Amino acid sequence: MNIPDVVRQMARDAKDAARKLSTLSRAVKDQVILQVAELLKERQAHLQAENARDVEAARQQSYPAAFIDRLTLSDKVMAAMVQGLKEVAALPDPVGAVTSMWVRPNGLLVGRQRIPLGVIGFIYESRPNVTVDAAALCFKSGNAVILKGGKEALHSNLALTALMQEALAAAQAPGAAIQVIPSVAREATLELLKQDELVDIIIPRGGEGLIRFVAEHSRIPVLKHYKGVCHIFVDEGADLGMAETVCFNAKVQRPGVCNAMETLLVHEAAAREFLPRMNRRFRAAGVELRGCPQTREIDPQVKPATDADWGFEFLDLILAVKVVPDLTAALEHIARYSSNHTEAIITRDYGRAQRFLHEVDSSVVLVNASTRFNDGGELGLGAEIGINTSKLHAFGPMGLEELTTTKFIVYGSGQVRT
Amino acid sequence: MNIPDVVRQMARDAKDAARKLSTLSRAVKDQVILQVAELLKERQAHLQAENARDVEAARQQSYPAAFIDRLTLSDKVMAAMVQGLKEVAALPDPVGAVTSMWVRPNGLLVGRQRIPLGVIGFIYESRPNVTVDAAALCFKSGNAVILKGGKEALHSNLALTALMQEALAAAQAPGAAIQVIPSVAREATLELLKQDELVDIIIPRGGEGLIRFVAEHSRIPVLKHYKGVCHIFVDEGADLGMAETVCFNAKVQRPGVCNAMETLLVHEAAAREFLPRMNRRFRAAGVELRGCPQTREIDPQVKPATDADWGFEFLDLILAVKVVPDLTAALEHIARYSSNHTEAIITRDYGRAQRFLHEVDSSVVLVNASTRFNDGGELGLGAEIGINTSKLHAFGPMGLEELTTTKFIVYGSGQVRT
Repeated sequence: MNIPDVVRQMARDAKDAARKLSTLSRAVKDQVILQVAELLKERQAHLQAENARDVEAARQQSYPAAFIDRLTLSDKVMAAMVQGLKEVAALPDPVGAVTSMWVRPNGLLVGRQRIPLGVIGFIYESRPNVTVDAAALCFKSGNAVILKGGKEALHSNLALTALMQEALAAAQAPGAAIQVIPSVAREATLELLKQDELVDIIIPRGGEGLIRFVAEHSRIPVLKHYKGVCHIFVDEGADLGMAETVCFNAKVQRPGVCNAMETLLVHEAAAREFLPRMNRRFRAAGVELRGCPQTREIDPQVKPATDADWGFEFLDLILAVKVVPDLTAALEHIARYSSNHTEAIITRDYGRAQRFLHEVDSSVVLVNASTRFNDGGELGLGAEIGINTSKLHAFGPMGLEELTTTKFIVYGSGQVRT
Repeated sequence: MNIPDVVRQMARDAKDAARKLSTLSRAVKDQVILQVAELLKERQAHLQAENARDVEAARQQSYPAAFIDRLTLSDKVMAAMVQGLKEVAALPDPVGAVTSMWVRPNGLLVGRQRIPLGVIGFIYESRPNVTVDAAALCFKSGNAVILKGGKEALHSNLALTALMQEALAAAQAPGAAIQVIPSVAREATLELLKQDELVDIIIPRGGEGLIRFVAEHSRIPVLKHYKGVCHIFVDEGADLGMAETVCFNAKVQRPGVCNAMETLLVHEAAAREFLPRMNRRFRAAGVELRGCPQTREIDPQVKPATDADWGFEFLDLILAVKVVPDLTAALEHIARYSSNHTEAIITRDYGRAQRFLHEVDSSVVLVNASTRFNDGGELGLGAEIGINTSKLHAFGPMGLEELTTTKFIVYGSGQVRT
């Protein structure tokens, strides 16, 4: 079979499997997930040998060290995979829950019941551990998943999938619940994106280039975020010690991720006291600061910001800093430049805290806390499969519940419509 | 300006308006909606004169009578529009509600708060009353809407929109909250479908051709249903009196709509008693029956069904009838042919009722009630803007709540991530 035929057949098999998965009990699902965890430990040497083939090939093609690091299934990464699986098994099963139920005047009892989405296409880049994490979340929420990993991780992904197949077979669960596309061709991705009759949603995870490619070519709805341009506004009268701690955490703790702060907005009444001490601390941590003219007047060491720095996702130890006259100006700046991902205010003022929460149109809006909390685990959803900054279906981090939808179930006693 | 420029500018204006709409109070929103109702009564003569231009043009182009009927703003249709607006004003405002809230171990208070989706593109066919119904639902839920109606209703739609603009202006609400594309060109629709940076969702309403066109060309997520191929399964041991009443209602009460029954499945143990009386009643109401060989053995007056009749949406007084050996066979038939819209079982058996509810993958699944209840108003959601048979965002009828999403709001006291 050629590649498009293979992908279409996988999609058909996934759809068949989805029907069975939707009624699988939690006990069976958890058994499979914990069995995968066991097998990961048992077969560690084999998996690392397969992974070494990918790593060796990447080395020969002179991929950068950071890339090779992400590609490698080290002992530490393998242990984290096992731990992650145990956590997913421990999470409640969202499927079947009736989220609300009510009686109509004619006696019909109407409820909304959680059901799986069906078939999920998951398209991602080089980290092979994502293969297992994503598969476990899709499986636990009763969905069939078709995985399309990065071309550099193919051997690793196929070995991991063979192992998951073994666990599925042991529990007599359908093998097509978890499939990896056995091809690295872009043609395979394009064919997957055409299966709108069989695949219910596409979740891409990776760089902005991958995500734009998927969004442009997909005929299936895509849950995605392109980037996280997170802002913190330090208000007049804020606790400046708290502001310093939170801003430092948001920028420095892990600068390469989507919920790190990229732009700091400071009320002009707080700027003269706050910026010198904050900037000192940032510089000591190696953060490059790029500021507006008012920022540079207060702290001449700050480089001038260009227009391109506002709304830019640095993903690095670089920060844009702007002094604003008031909350309204901060909200205007955020409305213009944010990516609808995460924004925070540091304030002591009740009214401005409420106004910020109310008016900012981002998936997570925080008062007096770090933007780094936009994360399924941190917000209490359990493990997350990704963050969605489109408003549809689930805005923000997506955990198990966000991989389900609801149908209406109706208990009647012979009612007809008049 | 040429048409694409006009549409792009409308989308930009809508996005600006959406920011203001998201914080509009319920009082102002209801005031606008009730003012539109008042103006509809005051300006009835003018609106009907504008509508008469559309109706006259349609007559000259020899449109069928049913089409002209749908196009006409009769006194009765106008009264229904006024009544519909009053009902929407009376519905609770979904925006701002915090649907759940919890405390994290670190003290963060995390909540999910309902917010509007943003900008909705609504594309529909000839009935001009839909212009007002849809605009009211979008406005009440805090969304800006761009309406693209059928070319035959342009004068009516522009007159209705001018009136809605007047009500918006009187309440100092943004005029771009409700806009009608002032062009009948397909080019305008295509341009709207490209505005994925400005428009959040597209809702098409009309025939399957329109909906497929929209789904194929849209870069924006589309909430839609192509068709409703609704099944009823009459189980062994069912109350056959109830089965007769429900099936008759589901097929005959309004055969041209998406929640009417198109295929009747009958357990073979019930068929010999049930089909003769049911078929007699159907025939008396002018229903053409097309059956499987077993059906025809019981009732030779039934025409033979062809393969094309299974899974076909007749939208007419035609019904496909099949005898099946058991519930499993009924579920198989439904899984293969249903449109995931609405299915019902008539049964007295507890276990089979539960199994049917559990396994059928449709937006509304009923026990002992007519498929005609798949409707926002009938299920208790209030007025509906449409029915979605894709699993994403909202599966089934969509009322005001389904035109919103949730963001996370987080109340902290200086928390950082470690």
